[in-house]
Amino acid sequence: MSSVVIHDPTLRDGQHAVRHQLGVAALRGYAEAADAAGIPVVEVGHGNGLGASSLQVGRAAVSDDVMLSTVREALRHSKMAVFMLPGWGTSDDLRKAVAHGADVVRVGVHCTETSLAERHLGFLREEGAEAHCALMMSHMATPAELAEHAARAVGYGARAVGIMDSAGHLLPQDVTDRIGAMAEAVDVPLIFHGHNNLGMAVANSVAAAGAGAAIIDGCARGFGAGAGNTQLEVVVPVLERSGYATGIDLYALLDAAEFAERELMPAPPVTGSLSIVSGLAGVFSGFKHQVLDQSARAGVDPRDVFFELGRRQAVAGQEDLIVDVVAELSARKAAI
Amino acid sequence: MSSVVIHDPTLRDGQHAVRHQLGVAALRGYAEAADAAGIPVVEVGHGNGLGASSLQVGRAAVSDDVMLSTVREALRHSKMAVFMLPGWGTSDDLRKAVAHGADVVRVGVHCTETSLAERHLGFLREEGAEAHCALMMSHMATPAELAEHAARAVGYGARAVGIMDSAGHLLPQDVTDRIGAMAEAVDVPLIFHGHNNLGMAVANSVAAAGAGAAIIDGCARGFGAGAGNTQLEVVVPVLERSGYATGIDLYALLDAAEFAERELMPAPPVTGSLSIVSGLAGVFSGFKHQVLDQSARAGVDPRDVFFELGRRQAVAGQEDLIVDVVAELSARKAAI
Repeated sequence: MSSVVIHDPTLRDGQHAVRHQLGVAALRGYAEAADAAGIPVVEVGHGNGLGASSLQVGRAAVSDDVMLSTVREALRHSKMAVFMLPGWGTSDDLRKAVAHGADVVRVGVHCTETSLAERHLGFLREEGAEAHCALMMSHMATPAELAEHAARAVGYGARAVGIMDSAGHLLPQDVTDRIGAMAEAVDVPLIFHGHNNLGMAVANSVAAAGAGAAIIDGCARGFGAGAGNTQLEVVVPVLERSGYATGIDLYALLDAAEFAERELMPAPPVTGSLSIVSGLAGVFSGFKHQVLDQSARAGVDPRDVFFELGRRQAVAGQEDLIVDVVAELSARKAAI
Repeated sequence: MSSVVIHDPTLRDGQHAVRHQLGVAALRGYAEAADAAGIPVVEVGHGNGLGASSLQVGRAAVSDDVMLSTVREALRHSKMAVFMLPGWGTSDDLRKAVAHGADVVRVGVHCTETSLAERHLGFLREEGAEAHCALMMSHMATPAELAEHAARAVGYGARAVGIMDSAGHLLPQDVTDRIGAMAEAVDVPLIFHGHNNLGMAVANSVAAAGAGAAIIDGCARGFGAGAGNTQLEVVVPVLERSGYATGIDLYALLDAAEFAERELMPAPPVTGSLSIVSGLAGVFSGFKHQVLDQSARAGVDPRDVFFELGRRQAVAGQEDLIVDVVAELSARKAAI
């Protein structure tokens, strides 16, 4: 039986579903439950990572300092991880996280922009922290491109590198191809982080392990925006049944998930129409609210907007494209 | 591009999630929406099928007669299907369903008990109805056994035969093996009906199509007991993307699913701890309430009860086994 390391971003990626409003009691309670279950790595933070709490993407209920010290105290065995997006987070934030005892630091970049992580990965290498590089929106790059960027990230200092299926667009064969190509290019552990827009998060995670991924992400009850993440307490026993040891206690894991459902979220994620459409279109689901607002005002179908954004390969940060697409669809409609 | 026929049991299997309380307006509204989306077959009935409304498994809000006439009126293009379990349903019920204009009649039996369907399938053959035979709890039989029973069902008169993953236990390779063996044994269309206890319903459905299944079941928002069924409006576009034409209009399908979420269910299904455990154990999730009640009274862990029921290969109708298992676990605990 081979083994995989389970990485749990419930207290970071899940924050997107509650506008970053998890409080100290929720953070502590879940971290303790995850630790008791033997989950190897517990990630915490604002949904957009270190330093991201802001008017633009939402202020967190709790500061980075308090999040980190709360979770650090709660974890006896599990490692603590943080996430950062260059631009939102800075080297100062990384320094602070290391000082708070973060064992794993993940730097996330768009899948073909690893160069943006170079400085941060280099800094973390010097600090001796376990640096991961996560290639986001990974459906937008070919397996060969991802392999090339994985090799670059390792060159910059990443001790693990992997892909996030940020739009929930990938199907199992897509994952197999991508992880497989990366496994040939680098010797560090490979990460897979799934989203469930097309109901494939668990199947994709098993495909990733089969292709050589050694670190699999999952969130309790799939806690996350829209259709949510890979459901942690499902993927763990399914990986075990598929021949991958996780070292996690099943009953304690189910208890942690019940705590999460009760104390962290108003309700578990539902795969609604726009989650499905954004998954099919391959568009970041974080565009949802702006697409809905602008479509309603212009009287166009938000689903058309998502598919057109997908054709234009829109990525996070390109919210201006929504304005263009809505205006164009509205004009096209008026011309009929 | 090959094609698959989508069969939609939202108004029958979904009833389990609302104790068979769907009313006339809900039945009519969803049937109209499904018809507008071009869903080929719409199934309706009490969750346990024709004639099942009773104190023992729950009285439906609406009689079989009213359900059938309501849905028949609402469907302009889609075929109407009904389900029956020999023992609950009788030949009189089948006669009534055919008189109401049911196009497809599914007879469900435990996967190794096709002989129980012989008389009913023979009757339907004489009536000229399109008879299907569904082999339930199909994880409990080997591919070879399922192939043998599929051939028997076809001999009795079934014009399509397939498997229900009633416990939500199967993984994609298990489905491939089972459908593959059946495809070698019979020449009629093969059916796959999934449940989502292990997050695999959509992936299993794609695997089924890949192995030769021509009829795929799905319910709007996965409407069904516990972790629910294969989510219809997800599996359809994923099948399309995987190379299987369905003939269904995506936007109208998404609209039907939104109607279902709003008008049929208090909330979409959630994959909770006991759904996961019953899926792993391979036990019918309908045991849940009795397992919970009896475990609480005896002070034993309901998860242990499910796993022990799985080891004893309990099937629906063997509720007495729950009493035995709870008593034994309780005695074992007292002896420690």
